[in-house]
Amino acid sequence: MGTVGTGVAKLLLDHGDRTARHAGRTLWLKKAVVRDLSKPRDVELPDDVVTDSIDDVINDPEITVVAQLIGGLEPARSIMLQLMEAGKDIVTANKALLAQHGAELFTRARELGRTIAFEASVAGGIPIITNISQCLSANQIQSLEGILNGTSNFIVSQMDEKGASYEDVVREAQRLGYAEADPAMDVDGTDAAQKLAILAHLAFGASVDWSDIPCDGIDGLDPADLIYASKLGYRIKLLAVATLAEDGLELSVGPTLVKIGTPLAEVRDAYNAIRVIGDAVGPVFYHGLGAGQMPTASAVTADIIDTAVGRTRLTFETLEYFCVDQPPRVKLRDADTLIGRYYFRLPVSNHPGTLAAITGAFAEDGISIASVIQHESGDDSPSDQPVQLVVMTHEATEGAARSATTKIEKLASVTGPVVRFRVKG
Amino acid sequence: MGTVGTGVAKLLLDHGDRTARHAGRTLWLKKAVVRDLSKPRDVELPDDVVTDSIDDVINDPEITVVAQLIGGLEPARSIMLQLMEAGKDIVTANKALLAQHGAELFTRARELGRTIAFEASVAGGIPIITNISQCLSANQIQSLEGILNGTSNFIVSQMDEKGASYEDVVREAQRLGYAEADPAMDVDGTDAAQKLAILAHLAFGASVDWSDIPCDGIDGLDPADLIYASKLGYRIKLLAVATLAEDGLELSVGPTLVKIGTPLAEVRDAYNAIRVIGDAVGPVFYHGLGAGQMPTASAVTADIIDTAVGRTRLTFETLEYFCVDQPPRVKLRDADTLIGRYYFRLPVSNHPGTLAAITGAFAEDGISIASVIQHESGDDSPSDQPVQLVVMTHEATEGAARSATTKIEKLASVTGPVVRFRVKG
Repeated sequence: MGTVGTGVAKLLLDHGDRTARHAGRTLWLKKAVVRDLSKPRDVELPDDVVTDSIDDVINDPEITVVAQLIGGLEPARSIMLQLMEAGKDIVTANKALLAQHGAELFTRARELGRTIAFEASVAGGIPIITNISQCLSANQIQSLEGILNGTSNFIVSQMDEKGASYEDVVREAQRLGYAEADPAMDVDGTDAAQKLAILAHLAFGASVDWSDIPCDGIDGLDPADLIYASKLGYRIKLLAVATLAEDGLELSVGPTLVKIGTPLAEVRDAYNAIRVIGDAVGPVFYHGLGAGQMPTASAVTADIIDTAVGRTRLTFETLEYFCVDQPPRVKLRDADTLIGRYYFRLPVSNHPGTLAAITGAFAEDGISIASVIQHESGDDSPSDQPVQLVVMTHEATEGAARSATTKIEKLASVTGPVVRFRVKG
Repeated sequence: MGTVGTGVAKLLLDHGDRTARHAGRTLWLKKAVVRDLSKPRDVELPDDVVTDSIDDVINDPEITVVAQLIGGLEPARSIMLQLMEAGKDIVTANKALLAQHGAELFTRARELGRTIAFEASVAGGIPIITNISQCLSANQIQSLEGILNGTSNFIVSQMDEKGASYEDVVREAQRLGYAEADPAMDVDGTDAAQKLAILAHLAFGASVDWSDIPCDGIDGLDPADLIYASKLGYRIKLLAVATLAEDGLELSVGPTLVKIGTPLAEVRDAYNAIRVIGDAVGPVFYHGLGAGQMPTASAVTADIIDTAVGRTRLTFETLEYFCVDQPPRVKLRDADTLIGRYYFRLPVSNHPGTLAAITGAFAEDGISIASVIQHESGDDSPSDQPVQLVVMTHEATEGAARSATTKIEKLASVTGPVVRFRVKG
């Protein structure tokens, strides 16, 4: 009965007619488990519904579906196992738990004949789990590109629109409730990588540990890069990408330059969006609220209805999700072989020979340069102040791009760390 | 075995592993019914699959699901009834049939314990039927705005981008296969109204005859209006709209000015898009290919899988679709009471008093004017040539807007018919 749980209780209690209509039966809210019985609640609950003991749920044979909306790994994991052993089907929004302990939880669910529904674990209100595992089931998904972390997108959008610093915008996001007191898992890309791992299981039959996904966050993003990107016709987004190639699946999370005017570039504030390409359906684009009480409660309640009706069971039986007894259908590609275009920004001292040394370093790794723009620090800055060199490359491998970065950072004329982002579209 | 049927056969035959994985069982293509056995086919079919007799399907007890992909009303209706009486579940893409004979077909399906799946009937590859009836089931849908006819959107986009005439673009669309030899039902709004009627049933529990939906098409659209709209910051789209108000459901189909930069305004070519607002989930936006062989086959095959697995049956039992024994949950609002902003274009003679007469007519119907722009025909045209007066109004009722139109067309200074479109965003 945290934020999302309260939203689910509202939908079940205030709109019981609606859920009954879609479920073909009345869904009764039997228990709501809280930590502190005395805390005031945002929803009026019938007597004998609120309890501070999970045992009241576990030992009640009338309870068949539990929306388990606890964050973190423990005690969430133990409680989920207990609930399934007590014969309850599970609905959860906990992507970290699934990403970390999915194999154990799904195997146990199958052994016990129970189901786990997890629509709310990725992209909040966008029903991407059902869309991939059911609506697009006639397709081989070829690629997925998503803005999956609303906090990061809010921060980047605000920096872009207001020219504000990273630190200022994080404070504003915390004030508005878009960012946690400690937003580390959001802004460092962990949250997006965990969601991408879940989608990669479902869409590609991959068996991937989220921590194996190459992952950069937007923490510490320099507003200068947003300005330089925009001059080149791009916005920077924290993009989670899965692409199926002949030799395996490419997965990555990182700040990415996305062409202005394309749908993903125009995703603002705390919205999420996902572009899926299927070999039959072509591109399908989804956009909606990625978090928040009621969008998440919408997904959780749809899962409760699906579980009560029996649809979840039918889907769960064929779900390619942590099927430990089956070999994965695809393997991950070696990150070094991934091909893409790159944006580099280098602080350099403005001396003769600098450009020659830098372009030489790119050439050594076989990277072809598409454009070089030199941004002065200001009109009246002395010539010994570093200037910012922005280099856009043609297609190159990640391995070559990393190798060039290392070489360039060692050049005497390069006065600070190199910024490197991927470029899409 | 027309275009879409061939696509479905391709998915079932060439990707049987995929459908088997998602269905948890092998789906066998037992029969493909064709009109002309001698016609060459785009897909290699096993011997004894092709037949020119529907009786081979009806009389085969091993056939449990039939994708009925015949257009038009008859013999499609009779065949569907025959198939259901023979114990087959139906998958169809025929929105005209559902819009016209849905009550009869759904009632009969329920009597016989059969199911009808129809994802492909609206918006082709966008799985909007499943999204509304399953994924967003915890919501009261508050509004739906859709570009549901790909042919119309292709024509309008091309006119907009190339400044071409309606007639030229229609010919081009026919050459490219985006428009039928007789595109009347696409361009006059009928097709969009039939799709909107289906969505209105599912999203609002409305019981609506498509022919009762106020409907205008884009046939005969004047390129001048695209230019004037663009100068005001809008694009013209054939928009299908459903909005739930306190006193009923508002439904309409017509060319509509949509603010440039909003997602619906940026939908190009033969794409479809739908913006749904749910009271819990907020706005969700879907974009994808609205027609074509493989996108439609993707939807049909997903329905075949859902039907084979049993999900369709579970959903069908609670579907608010032509439930003739239940009163509709909402009634349609009187079209005259609908409120919106309007774009008017009037060819007027350039004489003193003209503007006073026109603004007077608006005032008489209580319509407040937001802006008036006078577009000259050309710099060196004589002063007795008509000029084009573009009027944008504040909110007004449809009744008032229609009344003002009638009055204005009678004014001596107005030299031709008035163009009137709704404005969104």
